[in-house]
Amino acid sequence: MNAFTFYSPTLFAFGEGAEKRTGELVRQFGGHHALLVYGGGSVKRNGAYDAVTDALRDADITWAELGGVQPNPRSGLVYEGIDLCHRAGTDFILAIGGGSAIDTAKAIGFGAPYDGDFWDIFTGKAKLEQCMPVGVVLTIAAAGSEGSNSCVITQENGNMKWGSPKSDLIRPRFAVLNPRYTCTLPAYQTACGAVDMFSHICERYFSNTPDVALTDRLCEALLKTVLDAAPRALANPDDIAARSDLMWTSTLAHNNSVGVGRDQDWASHQIEHELSAFYDCAHGAGLAVVVPAWMEYVMRHDVARFARFAVNVFGAEMDYANPERTAREGIRRLRVFFAELGMPATLSEVGGNEKDIPAIIAHRREKPNGFPFGGFVKIGPDDMEAILRLCAK
Amino acid sequence: MNAFTFYSPTLFAFGEGAEKRTGELVRQFGGHHALLVYGGGSVKRNGAYDAVTDALRDADITWAELGGVQPNPRSGLVYEGIDLCHRAGTDFILAIGGGSAIDTAKAIGFGAPYDGDFWDIFTGKAKLEQCMPVGVVLTIAAAGSEGSNSCVITQENGNMKWGSPKSDLIRPRFAVLNPRYTCTLPAYQTACGAVDMFSHICERYFSNTPDVALTDRLCEALLKTVLDAAPRALANPDDIAARSDLMWTSTLAHNNSVGVGRDQDWASHQIEHELSAFYDCAHGAGLAVVVPAWMEYVMRHDVARFARFAVNVFGAEMDYANPERTAREGIRRLRVFFAELGMPATLSEVGGNEKDIPAIIAHRREKPNGFPFGGFVKIGPDDMEAILRLCAK
Repeated sequence: MNAFTFYSPTLFAFGEGAEKRTGELVRQFGGHHALLVYGGGSVKRNGAYDAVTDALRDADITWAELGGVQPNPRSGLVYEGIDLCHRAGTDFILAIGGGSAIDTAKAIGFGAPYDGDFWDIFTGKAKLEQCMPVGVVLTIAAAGSEGSNSCVITQENGNMKWGSPKSDLIRPRFAVLNPRYTCTLPAYQTACGAVDMFSHICERYFSNTPDVALTDRLCEALLKTVLDAAPRALANPDDIAARSDLMWTSTLAHNNSVGVGRDQDWASHQIEHELSAFYDCAHGAGLAVVVPAWMEYVMRHDVARFARFAVNVFGAEMDYANPERTAREGIRRLRVFFAELGMPATLSEVGGNEKDIPAIIAHRREKPNGFPFGGFVKIGPDDMEAILRLCAK
Repeated sequence: MNAFTFYSPTLFAFGEGAEKRTGELVRQFGGHHALLVYGGGSVKRNGAYDAVTDALRDADITWAELGGVQPNPRSGLVYEGIDLCHRAGTDFILAIGGGSAIDTAKAIGFGAPYDGDFWDIFTGKAKLEQCMPVGVVLTIAAAGSEGSNSCVITQENGNMKWGSPKSDLIRPRFAVLNPRYTCTLPAYQTACGAVDMFSHICERYFSNTPDVALTDRLCEALLKTVLDAAPRALANPDDIAARSDLMWTSTLAHNNSVGVGRDQDWASHQIEHELSAFYDCAHGAGLAVVVPAWMEYVMRHDVARFARFAVNVFGAEMDYANPERTAREGIRRLRVFFAELGMPATLSEVGGNEKDIPAIIAHRREKPNGFPFGGFVKIGPDDMEAILRLCAK
């Protein structure tokens, strides 16, 4: 186990009716005049918007609004939100929705107090030194941004989907999690969320750090929960037990509870960010294509770990004489699982084209520290090409 | 799953050399003049005291000292610490040691700002409304007090071992966890710690709340880790991987990570507190006697859960035709495990006597809400007597 610091000061209010606490929580963390950040109609249709604004009114919190957040959230809305904060005297940013709303709120949170272009903080030109308090009312179980120390924004000028620096300053002060609001999600979005959280755990699970028995077991507990709960939520969208399991798993999958003390990978996420930047596909859908291909490509690096994954997560029988067969069986079962969720399996199914691969790799090179990436296996341009070719099969 | 609030704002600094950060952390959380709370010679012998005071000096933190904390920490030292805080202008309390030092520090923390006898807060005569900031340098993996919202003190006047009200105000601001300091613990103390953390998880695992698949799996992950790591640490005291697993498990076992959203039991702890109040035995040793007896007594309340415990934690084979046989096998294996750790199995082995049982039960009655207790099975005086008689066998 490596040395680590674990600091997760977000207050999580979980369960039916938790959204009624929003006003009191904004006040508890120093807010008086909030900026509400949300997407489109879904938070209005599912009642979250009304419940939250009622709760704000009850607590004498006033607010301004920034709607229109889209998946793969764009820089344009961040600039707009920063401007709105300055004009409206905002002292608290409240996201209602999923990862896109939260990430927009976080970027506004550290962009507003910075005297310059907020993108400077992504490029490293400026340091992340201050952030306004951010709160969350979560309505999609997926990204885990409600408990995480980072955010991902797409800069429209250059089509760059980049992650912010990691900082405890941008962890939400509180997150209200009522799984009821996830019951009305379209099946495709539920499935994308399940893939996203599954991947967040895998990025931590596939590690070269020795002596990580405890976090290995915690990762497996979460992975098995996704495996069990996601099909139940799809079969019966109102299965509140399954929705609850998915929602809390999505948070634990990404607040680093299960990742402390171990080197992590994150290569699949890096590759997927290029796909969603190119094709504007859903992040979870892109991951469903990339993760199994990545696994196939890197499996021989640590056959024992992939065999363990097959046995402990998917219940495969261990072939002691031929562990590689077991390792492959795990990847096969993962593909079956993603297919059962209705997720795409190939590049073309997310709107991609094998011909674009050189351009995708060239685009990756433009990132600071573009190559190599990945903590489990170092991925250079040739490796990324090979993985994308596996995605195209 | 029940509705819940999870708030664990403690910063955990884990790993070799983490104690060097103590001064900087005291400062980060607003301390300038600390009160050091510790036990006897062990923190001086193992180097923790020197490393911490060096780090405080480097950060220009001054301090006063309160040594002499004993296991089953007493009210007398709390009164002394409160007095010292008032005289010395203390603004931060720093515990160096295990649960006894931390619990003493917490009680001083909320006793010092209260204008009256701190025990009023235990009896409910006064509310816990303020607490000075508390930090921890942990040298024993056991109690989990470094991340918890409660403490246990024995009031010498009446020999009452009582828990404080639970409050987020008393969670430590930071906890420094260097597993190296646990390598020099006597085997008996290592084993007591393992039993204590195992019990903290069991108190959460044995629940009547339906639909708790996720936290069930997390509990099992921690239980298996104790099962695996404790014998390794005893066989080779310098096994830093095993020590690391135990140390982080002790924290996760009690910061409620694995207990959210489920009713919990805590009957074994209630019974054990009477044993250690009567016989001044080590808390973990008392639990090693009580927990299997409690299990035997309540097993029929939920045979399926005890069978699951046997299979998922102890690797027993499920007897589908006779689940009760599997359930009993789990309890048998638990007894074997505790025996292998060198833990006592009977009342007499912790200095007790079956003749005292009526007096123990009478003593329990004096507590506010003395009977019934226990969330999984309600324990009345007759049940407590039956469990203690099982302990005496």
